[in-house]
Amino acid sequence: MPDVQSSTDLRHIPIERVGIRGVRHPMLVAGGDGQPLPTIGQWELTVALPAHEKGTHMSRFVALLEKSRTTALTPALFCDLAREMLPLLNAQKGDITVHFPYFINKTAPMSGVTSLMDYELTWVARAAENGVAFELSVLVPVTSLCPCSKAISEYGAHNQRSHVTVTVALDDLSSLDIDGLIRSIEKEGSSELWGLLKRTDEKYVTERAYENPKFVEDLVRDVAGQVRKLPGLTSYRVQAENFESIHNHSAYAVVEG
Amino acid sequence: MPDVQSSTDLRHIPIERVGIRGVRHPMLVAGGDGQPLPTIGQWELTVALPAHEKGTHMSRFVALLEKSRTTALTPALFCDLAREMLPLLNAQKGDITVHFPYFINKTAPMSGVTSLMDYELTWVARAAENGVAFELSVLVPVTSLCPCSKAISEYGAHNQRSHVTVTVALDDLSSLDIDGLIRSIEKEGSSELWGLLKRTDEKYVTERAYENPKFVEDLVRDVAGQVRKLPGLTSYRVQAENFESIHNHSAYAVVEG
Amino acid sequence: MPDVQSSTDLRHIPIERVGIRGVRHPMLVAGGDGQPLPTIGQWELTVALPAHEKGTHMSRFVALLEKSRTTALTPALFCDLAREMLPLLNAQKGDITVHFPYFINKTAPMSGVTSLMDYELTWVARAAENGVAFELSVLVPVTSLCPCSKAISEYGAHNQRSHVTVTVALDDLSSLDIDGLIRSIEKEGSSELWGLLKRTDEKYVTERAYENPKFVEDLVRDVAGQVRKLPGLTSYRVQAENFESIHNHSAYAVVEG
Amino acid sequence: MPDVQSSTDLRHIPIERVGIRGVRHPMLVAGGDGQPLPTIGQWELTVALPAHEKGTHMSRFVALLEKSRTTALTPALFCDLAREMLPLLNAQKGDITVHFPYFINKTAPMSGVTSLMDYELTWVARAAENGVAFELSVLVPVTSLCPCSKAISEYGAHNQRSHVTVTVALDDLSSLDIDGLIRSIEKEGSSELWGLLKRTDEKYVTERAYENPKFVEDLVRDVAGQVRKLPGLTSYRVQAENFESIHNHSAYAVVEG
Repeated sequence: MPDVQSSTDLRHIPIERVGIRGVRHPMLVAGGDGQPLPTIGQWELTVALPAHEKGTHMSRFVALLEKSRTTALTPALFCDLAREMLPLLNAQKGDITVHFPYFINKTAPMSGVTSLMDYELTWVARAAENGVAFELSVLVPVTSLCPCSKAISEYGAHNQRSHVTVTVALDDLSSLDIDGLIRSIEKEGSSELWGLLKRTDEKYVTERAYENPKFVEDLVRDVAGQVRKLPGLTSYRVQAENFESIHNHSAYAVVEG
Repeated sequence: MPDVQSSTDLRHIPIERVGIRGVRHPMLVAGGDGQPLPTIGQWELTVALPAHEKGTHMSRFVALLEKSRTTALTPALFCDLAREMLPLLNAQKGDITVHFPYFINKTAPMSGVTSLMDYELTWVARAAENGVAFELSVLVPVTSLCPCSKAISEYGAHNQRSHVTVTVALDDLSSLDIDGLIRSIEKEGSSELWGLLKRTDEKYVTERAYENPKFVEDLVRDVAGQVRKLPGLTSYRVQAENFESIHNHSAYAVVEG
Repeated sequence: MPDVQSSTDLRHIPIERVGIRGVRHPMLVAGGDGQPLPTIGQWELTVALPAHEKGTHMSRFVALLEKSRTTALTPALFCDLAREMLPLLNAQKGDITVHFPYFINKTAPMSGVTSLMDYELTWVARAAENGVAFELSVLVPVTSLCPCSKAISEYGAHNQRSHVTVTVALDDLSSLDIDGLIRSIEKEGSSELWGLLKRTDEKYVTERAYENPKFVEDLVRDVAGQVRKLPGLTSYRVQAENFESIHNHSAYAVVEG
Repeated sequence: MPDVQSSTDLRHIPIERVGIRGVRHPMLVAGGDGQPLPTIGQWELTVALPAHEKGTHMSRFVALLEKSRTTALTPALFCDLAREMLPLLNAQKGDITVHFPYFINKTAPMSGVTSLMDYELTWVARAAENGVAFELSVLVPVTSLCPCSKAISEYGAHNQRSHVTVTVALDDLSSLDIDGLIRSIEKEGSSELWGLLKRTDEKYVTERAYENPKFVEDLVRDVAGQVRKLPGLTSYRVQAENFESIHNHSAYAVVEG
């Protein structure tokens, strides 16, 4: 049976990344409480292909993914997966990206009732012969309340759900605390969100947001102030998007460093 | 060249609807100001297929769509298109659905500056030998401000963007005023939205919403009160979804009649 | 603290459904192999609200959801959840919908290698005082190969990924076999799909599709033929959408019964 | 009325980009035939904000957008818009991005019938005091037919819709021909797509794809070969995603230069 992928390519064009994308697979993440958290990942696995090789071997990516699904993944084990991919694909460089919902059990501020909040995490591992670079993104929804609206109005102030997305590159994973990072981000909203709030909590949340107005500019600056404290940080990006309650579009800001 | 679609089918299963879907095409809509409004439609065109026919002729749907694109469509002309489709496809029944963004030029409440607001319209025409039934859906974004949050809090009240979606079946299109319908829906929000607001407008909008709190239940009831007044109405559905600023999920309500 | 939701409403408009939507929550499904399958659900929980009641109590929906998440849900237990919701919300009628990815471990046709395939399930339970009605939808991706293209071409035939979505209402859940239903649907594609295929499998799949051409009309008819055999079936709908490889739109068909 | 945005910020954190996002607005594009093509844009307009400024003035972005909508935009006029934004916002740097569907009237290969094909364009203009950098992305859907599947099978070969996305940075817009670029990209698919095909065309397209098999690696290499010829090119990226008809995931490749 001919092996077309293994033939020689004469176009002299190396391929930065080739592989599979949009693979939906169950996965286990090592949760903040030490328990494996089952979730569903959207995976992309690619390798660099030298100019003289015609094609990669797509089925080997899926086989690697199948093997990994009973392991409770940490960022470090995820980097190992990228490292392991290189010899399987005879590649010098390779990247794995996974995007998945993540949950933290939160306690309401007054009533003490508990409920899950959902976040979105993305992990990227870029493996080369000299090591693996790791990047983490987390999308944290918060409330933002407009300082201008508050200052100019007799009463009330428009507020809305906002998405804060923090992306960090880290050269030391040993002290990475994902739950801690998420909590430090949501503390910088006008208010944080909860899945379940009783009336005493709703009063607290409403007043807290009113006492704590923030522009989209304030959100990215204050979150950047927290992110800069992360041990092992090599670069970061903080984005915030406010789904404005008075417009049909968003306010948006980015700080990078 | 064999015509497989035209052969006889022996499975004795009639097909309710078969055709094309997800066709993106430029279109002209007759706007509220009498000017043709250019927009982009997502089209679905289908016909009923009797049990003994193997297949329909897909290319004829696209040909019909090509012909229609220089006409400024009204609901009545859209119904004509569905009527015209039946003989082209040798069909007894056929449906056309188009979904498109729609724009109204609005004037800010205090400063008087003008800007566009965008809405989403869906038109459905269901043609049969005895006539064409027409259905209109419109998605109108508004602000909702929570009455409970206002009542229990010392100051402030959580508010957010909400989507109000009204679907109406009408047996008389002669007095249908789409801009008027949209305006009557957005008046029932805690506040309506604008693309462009100056600071005096923002003060107005903030105070207006605070003076006019509405639960998702209030939204659907108040909008239903308006919709019921439409001439020629045979049935309706009002949905509202509030993208809660204190949770990461929505409040949602439906009234039908 | 005032309880605004519990006040009396004077608009005389009952609300068909009001509650929460877009709640993302981890869940356990009783898998075909008897093992609980962890997945992530998108939930909507609503109740009917009589004309004289101003509002429902949103937080009770979330509390119910929190309670359910450690149970491996079957359709029957899911119906129990809807039944349990009615007294919690003081409601006469109430609906729960959940949409989630579902996985089956499949064996490649020639090499015998195993891998997961992902599907999308939706469960709907509609509870009233006289019982709970259950509806299941499943989206199954398959290959479709065009009979016309095969018949008129010297060699080759265009083929593409297709989504077959089957919705069934059942009045007897005792013999419902979701994995069996999915497998019976995918057997009706020109070919079924797998996550992982070796070259011998790819040869098999390619030839199988070429030997077995189907229009979108054939897909819905043949799948309907399978679905009609389900015990306890009260109504069904079969939809197929072919993401045509020769166009930038889909062919689409629906059979209902 | 206080102007909170204009107060002084003490956090010493400059903001890379702040503005509005997700604004949907009608627009005119100068089409390949010299006629203005009406379409709908998704806009993002942002500026850099120095560390000592608290906030930008969001409403000025919308005002700029309102002004632009009756102009048939070329890439050069779009760059002018970004240049014009800087003094309006008192900014040193600013970016505008717009994403919109674009259409070309194509002629079927055998029958000669004409129909529209839809593509997606993204334009980015990055203005600074020393000039404006322009970047263009275009998403072109094509057919890809698998060389391995063809080589190992007795008959047939799996094929599918693929998205080829080309991103180019150009320092000379004078000879930019968007329609020509799109046409040169789609020629590199196993076959190009059309909105409307008669049976003689379908035979041509089927046989053409079978005679011209391409891996995702071939697609990006062959398209890169075309893109490299563009006058004024400073950098490029070619991505291809094949929505595999035998799997429920994509094959994906990227070439950069």
